[in-house]
Amino acid sequence: MAERPATPTLDRVRFPGDLKGMSDAELLRVADELRAETISAVSVPGGHLGAGLGVVEITTAIHAVFDTPRDKLIWDVGHQCYPHKILTGRRDRIRTLRMGGGLSGFTKRKESEYDPFGAAHSSTSISSALGFAAGRELGADVGDAIAVIGDGAMTAGLAYEAMNNAGWLKHRLIVILNDNEMSIAPPVGAMSQYLSRLYANGPMHDLKSLAKGAMDAVPGPLGEMLREGAHRAETMLKSATVGGTMFEELGFDYVGPIDGHDMEQLLGVLRAVKAKSTGPVLIHAITTKGKGYAPAEGSADKGHATAKFDVATGEQKKGKSNAPAYTKVFANALIKEAEKDDRIVAVNAAMPSGTGVDLFEQAFPKRTFDVGLAEQHAVCFSAGLAASGMKPFCAIYSTFLQRGYDQIVHDVAIQSLPVRFAIDRAGLVGADGATHAGSFDVAYLGCLPGFVIMAAADEAELVHMIRTAVEIDDAPSAVRYPRGEGVGVDMPDEGVALPIGKGRIVREGSRIALLSLGTRLAECLTAAEELDAKGISTTVADARFAKPLDRELILDLAANHEALITIEEGSVGGFGSHVLHLLATEGALDHGLKIRPMVLPDVFIDQDSPAKMYDFAGLSAPSIVATALQMVGVESIAARA
Amino acid sequence: MAERPATPTLDRVRFPGDLKGMSDAELLRVADELRAETISAVSVPGGHLGAGLGVVEITTAIHAVFDTPRDKLIWDVGHQCYPHKILTGRRDRIRTLRMGGGLSGFTKRKESEYDPFGAAHSSTSISSALGFAAGRELGADVGDAIAVIGDGAMTAGLAYEAMNNAGWLKHRLIVILNDNEMSIAPPVGAMSQYLSRLYANGPMHDLKSLAKGAMDAVPGPLGEMLREGAHRAETMLKSATVGGTMFEELGFDYVGPIDGHDMEQLLGVLRAVKAKSTGPVLIHAITTKGKGYAPAEGSADKGHATAKFDVATGEQKKGKSNAPAYTKVFANALIKEAEKDDRIVAVNAAMPSGTGVDLFEQAFPKRTFDVGLAEQHAVCFSAGLAASGMKPFCAIYSTFLQRGYDQIVHDVAIQSLPVRFAIDRAGLVGADGATHAGSFDVAYLGCLPGFVIMAAADEAELVHMIRTAVEIDDAPSAVRYPRGEGVGVDMPDEGVALPIGKGRIVREGSRIALLSLGTRLAECLTAAEELDAKGISTTVADARFAKPLDRELILDLAANHEALITIEEGSVGGFGSHVLHLLATEGALDHGLKIRPMVLPDVFIDQDSPAKMYDFAGLSAPSIVATALQMVGVESIAARA
Repeated sequence: MAERPATPTLDRVRFPGDLKGMSDAELLRVADELRAETISAVSVPGGHLGAGLGVVEITTAIHAVFDTPRDKLIWDVGHQCYPHKILTGRRDRIRTLRMGGGLSGFTKRKESEYDPFGAAHSSTSISSALGFAAGRELGADVGDAIAVIGDGAMTAGLAYEAMNNAGWLKHRLIVILNDNEMSIAPPVGAMSQYLSRLYANGPMHDLKSLAKGAMDAVPGPLGEMLREGAHRAETMLKSATVGGTMFEELGFDYVGPIDGHDMEQLLGVLRAVKAKSTGPVLIHAITTKGKGYAPAEGSADKGHATAKFDVATGEQKKGKSNAPAYTKVFANALIKEAEKDDRIVAVNAAMPSGTGVDLFEQAFPKRTFDVGLAEQHAVCFSAGLAASGMKPFCAIYSTFLQRGYDQIVHDVAIQSLPVRFAIDRAGLVGADGATHAGSFDVAYLGCLPGFVIMAAADEAELVHMIRTAVEIDDAPSAVRYPRGEGVGVDMPDEGVALPIGKGRIVREGSRIALLSLGTRLAECLTAAEELDAKGISTTVADARFAKPLDRELILDLAANHEALITIEEGSVGGFGSHVLHLLATEGALDHGLKIRPMVLPDVFIDQDSPAKMYDFAGLSAPSIVATALQMVGVESIAARA
Repeated sequence: MAERPATPTLDRVRFPGDLKGMSDAELLRVADELRAETISAVSVPGGHLGAGLGVVEITTAIHAVFDTPRDKLIWDVGHQCYPHKILTGRRDRIRTLRMGGGLSGFTKRKESEYDPFGAAHSSTSISSALGFAAGRELGADVGDAIAVIGDGAMTAGLAYEAMNNAGWLKHRLIVILNDNEMSIAPPVGAMSQYLSRLYANGPMHDLKSLAKGAMDAVPGPLGEMLREGAHRAETMLKSATVGGTMFEELGFDYVGPIDGHDMEQLLGVLRAVKAKSTGPVLIHAITTKGKGYAPAEGSADKGHATAKFDVATGEQKKGKSNAPAYTKVFANALIKEAEKDDRIVAVNAAMPSGTGVDLFEQAFPKRTFDVGLAEQHAVCFSAGLAASGMKPFCAIYSTFLQRGYDQIVHDVAIQSLPVRFAIDRAGLVGADGATHAGSFDVAYLGCLPGFVIMAAADEAELVHMIRTAVEIDDAPSAVRYPRGEGVGVDMPDEGVALPIGKGRIVREGSRIALLSLGTRLAECLTAAEELDAKGISTTVADARFAKPLDRELILDLAANHEALITIEEGSVGGFGSHVLHLLATEGALDHGLKIRPMVLPDVFIDQDSPAKMYDFAGLSAPSIVATALQMVGVESIAARA
């Protein structure tokens, strides 16, 4: 482990209250030391570094000026929150970020009163902050509501809906737009300092009118300088006018842009807003993602998320694996299909590398669509593509696909449009915890008439299922697969379409039947070996399809085994429930069937390694063995063995 | 039935192609006659009148200028589509609108090739039209993509997400903003005519720059007139600048505002757009909802939706009922609770009267929030309110709640925030058909850990469940109830909180057990009487809770009856599936249980009366009886009777 940085001023801060007596110069030192501490801390567990480094000064300034936790500070997509956690009583645990039993990588209500609203999905901060503000106006014990939201998160419909409503309600509400998209250097000071000074000295409407008329309205030498126009100042001015106009149209006062790394500006603006603001205000702060850490600033994604790394060099320490990641298998399989069929297109929502669509884009740039952080539109747009005769693959993580649910029902399923959903991160996902778990997709899709739902048991199966999805051109279909690497099976040269609604027997046995959907298959095979060793002959089947079910296979397994276990990486209401529904409807339970549906337990499971999470969930081989033994009765083993 | 209007010119139009040879004067007559025919047609079945009357000229002009069905015309929220249906080969069936076996009240792909994308939920048109446009750019056989969207639908995040993406892709795409929010008279001709003439004569960018600089840029006498400024012209100009700016920020060319009832303007602008447009363009048309029919124009909602009516007087012919509507029961119950608890607030998404929140608002205006067509925000905002300590009731129809699903999971359930969902229109809804059916909520909520889900069996139960929801202050909860009137039971003076997760025996029997969730209870009681009459003693239980389940009650029913039937107004994966999961897990199926889960069939059910739809679904008393008889064996009746 690298040596810890020296942080004498930061060491005096255990809670935000400790910032209150400090001078601005001391606050500046706190911010600098907070940056060093953040880099050091994230180097241990890995995590989202760039976002946090971009908001070190904003974090320090907010906590210095406002009175958290009574003032509600809401970080949009909590992965900007590491510096915030360090300042709010969690520094002693900051090196446990994203580990089992450690701090969450996001804000989390249960973790601290300084996290008033957990956020791991994006674009919720304005909406939830407005809820706090509205509560306050009705007497709730809430101070200010402050949302810090990135420019990327602003593209989501939810942020727009919330702005619309905030502008209408007119409650006091502070939104800080953390704008790090600009790759140019931080703004030259003239305009932004001018604006912040104006703001601090004058009433709000003066600033507004000045920001609007900008070029002409700025008086004196500063205005002259602007009119003569240094190029950078012009760029910022344009941005100010644009931003101001759009946000003001939605009813916000607009301040900015300001330099989000300039503590003096930040403190000035925040103090003025705190003193004077009466309605919704948007502070537009320009920041640099990964600010202050060269390896992050220099990388393409500005150190968005990293594995463990060496602080000096920035080198990441990733584990090695022999099997390819499912994400990459999906991408390569789709590329191969697309080479043969020019109607295939790929759609994703601001996750090109996470979904593997970046690889597809390299091969087929014109047939690739990244619609931004906008899952509703991603799904509806895909439906339009399908209606036009294309074959869209809409690649969205299971947990984020929840955002497009109504479009899945109304625009895709009801119209039987052949949109293919590539559902990555199905099941438990590890370090990102409960908010990112893909637990519900089989339940929320399985109830929809006409949907074809597949789950890959291994990476070769995924290749075949992508091929199958290509061929399903008269109905919506979905393929789900987990985060991480495959199991290392031989890979087919190309996918072969599977018969719809047909599973497969992987291992023949006679007494117990394990019916698996998805990648629990490996655990089932392990369990079967163990059960066989105990003299209990075990069949293992891979359902392949959650919908339509393989009626014949299921009835056959039920009829010819003493006990049947279903297992899946999903919640109740999914595959196991559908199997039970089929068996009940067919009368296969009438005369007795020992059947146990093994599903995720009815709790939200905290972060850990996926393996440990599945152990906790009771979906690993030992739990399967234990369930099977209990079903046939331990005493019967002796009797029959 | 009123006399049919004389429509000699319209009579010559069976399909849009018939408009092609017509002069502009003839097209104007078509529009006038189309208005009369629309009023006459809607008077028979009832339906959405105002929206259609507002777009009579727009409909005629689009079909005259563009080449549908190769050009894809997409109506946002199909209830503007009645005139469109009349012009596209469906006039002979237009008086069957929304009836069983008749035309859908919305656009529907299966109904006509002129409906390229069905739309019954709002704000999908730009997104889906962009899908068509993107398909076209990749070689799909698609002409222009044209979306017609109302100003209300523009408040939804999906519309914003789609605009964002359209502006970025830069494909040719035509969006017509049907703006009927302005209650002032249609725009004075000067500005709008000037703009449309400019547009028709000059290249696009000229118009843009003029629209932007507007006041100063307009040259000559027209500009002078504007600068001298009639009040109306100023209002329109302001609107032009505002609209232009926002849409142009998102990458659209902006044309307007134009008078959406002036055929000459419409034809001119559409012809120019068709000839010259290269990227996304937004045409801002001002219309009057209910235009041309005095009873509609004069009503508060501009004839948004009506029952059957008398054409001459506008008088609506509604059926009478003795029992109160569930919507009203909910509203009154919540008002009573709110009188005792000032933390109770109500949130709705642009459906105040549909949800009954308008009544709550009359009593508690400050504690009522209509957030606009924005279900994502409605849910997340409610989560913020709950986190602030308020007790939000978020009232959204089952089908529209799908739009807020990720917020339900991520912002409400994972954080265990006590948001109360009042889910109206649960189950089948009648004339609005499959797109509005509330079939999936128990499946998509039931899989979420910690949720409390109730379903009211009658209107008195609803009152108790609202009280129960008020008391559940540590977890999310939902109460679902159907469209329409209650069953006429005695109403309690005030609600009494129910024990969580406990059902009730409504009728004691011995041989068959019917376990109902929701308002199928009445059918169960009817079935039970019939079964009893046949000598089969029948128990009827009301589960009340879909989650948590009443374990004791269910195991008891299973243990002490020969057969058990579950029944609900919902899909597979819901209540029945959860009951089966419980019974399997508890080993209650091991030694045989005749159990049949009765759920909605796995198809989307077309419009009809709710009663007929439930007959079709096999969830009415005769189906329950038949299922029960089959389970115990018809021959056994004789044996035991």
